[in-house]
Amino acid sequence: MASIVGFDQHPSDTLRVGKGFSLAAVDPEATPGYSGSKADGEALLADLDGKLTELQEKLFAESRFGGKNRILLVLQAMDTAGKGGIVNHVMATMDPQGVQFKAFKAPSELEKSYDFLWRIEKEVPAAGMVGIFDRSHYEDVLIHRVHNWATPDEITRRYRAINEFEARQADAGTRIVKVMLNISKDEQKSRLLARLDNPAKHWKYSSGDLKERAFWEDYMAAYQAAFNETSTAAAPWYVVPANKKWYARIAVQQLVMSALSDFRLEWPKAAFDVEVERELVARS
Amino acid sequence: MASIVGFDQHPSDTLRVGKGFSLAAVDPEATPGYSGSKADGEALLADLDGKLTELQEKLFAESRFGGKNRILLVLQAMDTAGKGGIVNHVMATMDPQGVQFKAFKAPSELEKSYDFLWRIEKEVPAAGMVGIFDRSHYEDVLIHRVHNWATPDEITRRYRAINEFEARQADAGTRIVKVMLNISKDEQKSRLLARLDNPAKHWKYSSGDLKERAFWEDYMAAYQAAFNETSTAAAPWYVVPANKKWYARIAVQQLVMSALSDFRLEWPKAAFDVEVERELVARS
Repeated sequence: MASIVGFDQHPSDTLRVGKGFSLAAVDPEATPGYSGSKADGEALLADLDGKLTELQEKLFAESRFGGKNRILLVLQAMDTAGKGGIVNHVMATMDPQGVQFKAFKAPSELEKSYDFLWRIEKEVPAAGMVGIFDRSHYEDVLIHRVHNWATPDEITRRYRAINEFEARQADAGTRIVKVMLNISKDEQKSRLLARLDNPAKHWKYSSGDLKERAFWEDYMAAYQAAFNETSTAAAPWYVVPANKKWYARIAVQQLVMSALSDFRLEWPKAAFDVEVERELVARS
Repeated sequence: MASIVGFDQHPSDTLRVGKGFSLAAVDPEATPGYSGSKADGEALLADLDGKLTELQEKLFAESRFGGKNRILLVLQAMDTAGKGGIVNHVMATMDPQGVQFKAFKAPSELEKSYDFLWRIEKEVPAAGMVGIFDRSHYEDVLIHRVHNWATPDEITRRYRAINEFEARQADAGTRIVKVMLNISKDEQKSRLLARLDNPAKHWKYSSGDLKERAFWEDYMAAYQAAFNETSTAAAPWYVVPANKKWYARIAVQQLVMSALSDFRLEWPKAAFDVEVERELVARS
């Protein structure tokens, strides 16, 4: 059996958006901190799944006894970047009763009549849960900025509101991991063409995708601005190169595992006398 | 490579609760309609996962173009029967955005102030979704009957209300699959002892499990009564022998696949001119 190739440098360090971060300087083809091949990456992913399952179960178990820890994974990306595949993989390794998944679509009229965080607050993870947002409140500072659906002052207000909102979640026990899956414009073109070449994928294609694609540079500027304003200690952003799907998966797996590991989770100690209960069950 | 051993008789036929059904006559150790070994069953499960994934994606895709079809899988069982494992497996094969999972716990004070179907209606699957209920409105005619939390007249009213409620869901496009995972009392004892032997499982153990176990025969009578009253053409019950976990998994997989197959799902036809869009993408 081949040995498992791990990361040389942890994605928590290499992919984190810190001071002076430049999105334009990130190569979507790169595999930062990982020198293995695609096959190595796939083997690593499979090898760590069991560990991820155990960590998530411990988080959930802890909450049954009063623990307040929880995770919120926020996924943002341009179309076709592979959010769905990431969600599929992370969720497949976890117990569904411990996962809260929410895909945020265009807001309804009712949702639009409230402040933008109203619908978000309702979906934050409960204690012990791994929350996953497929798109999020960041749409309100991304597409809204690109299409001028909000004034610059309003966008500024939203950055501040987001930081306060996320800091409050963090104070309540939530570890927030914000991921932008970073594909290149060329890679998006190949993936859109691949969709058109496969009749089983036609339902995923919308000419709306092409309309947003025309604003690529504006989106990149909106992401850069959002990173500048909202990558905080309580809720850092990670930009994950995503032209190579296998790399994006192992990187996100590492980020989620690292967030879970930071809780130093243990199995809850039995609050009952194991021997007494054994005897009662045996006699029942 | 060994060849795949399929079912001789389909679980939709062999496990379905029809006229004259007797729960007491079902052997929880049996593997009705399947003559393969455990290893055969595991190979079958893995072999069909891809097909299940595709069916579920087609169901979801169809709904994006106005389709109203959907699935509701209701899971009921005594503690330790393996609901969690079934849910894990079914969900791991499906796209999370097409699954609505709900674990019904003891109702809150607010929920108790409404009719018992109030909290259920809020969780029924939307068009295109596979809904999964881990416990359900059947608790209101099972544990409520066992502990006399409702009068016989009220239990009778609930059977009728359930049948009307489920018939309405079916009329609106929902195929309902109700599964009781059937373990023996002895098997439950072994599984409870196994939980006590493993410190990583202590958090799952509750002395409340033992309390309900003492009412085993009353529960079996309540299940039998519920089957008599609520196994309808629109929403049939299936009793799945579950002492062998591998068998329960392949049986439920078959039931869900069969429900999906009955929709005769096809990939939605492109509503756009593929060649025109290809050209537009290529030039973008």
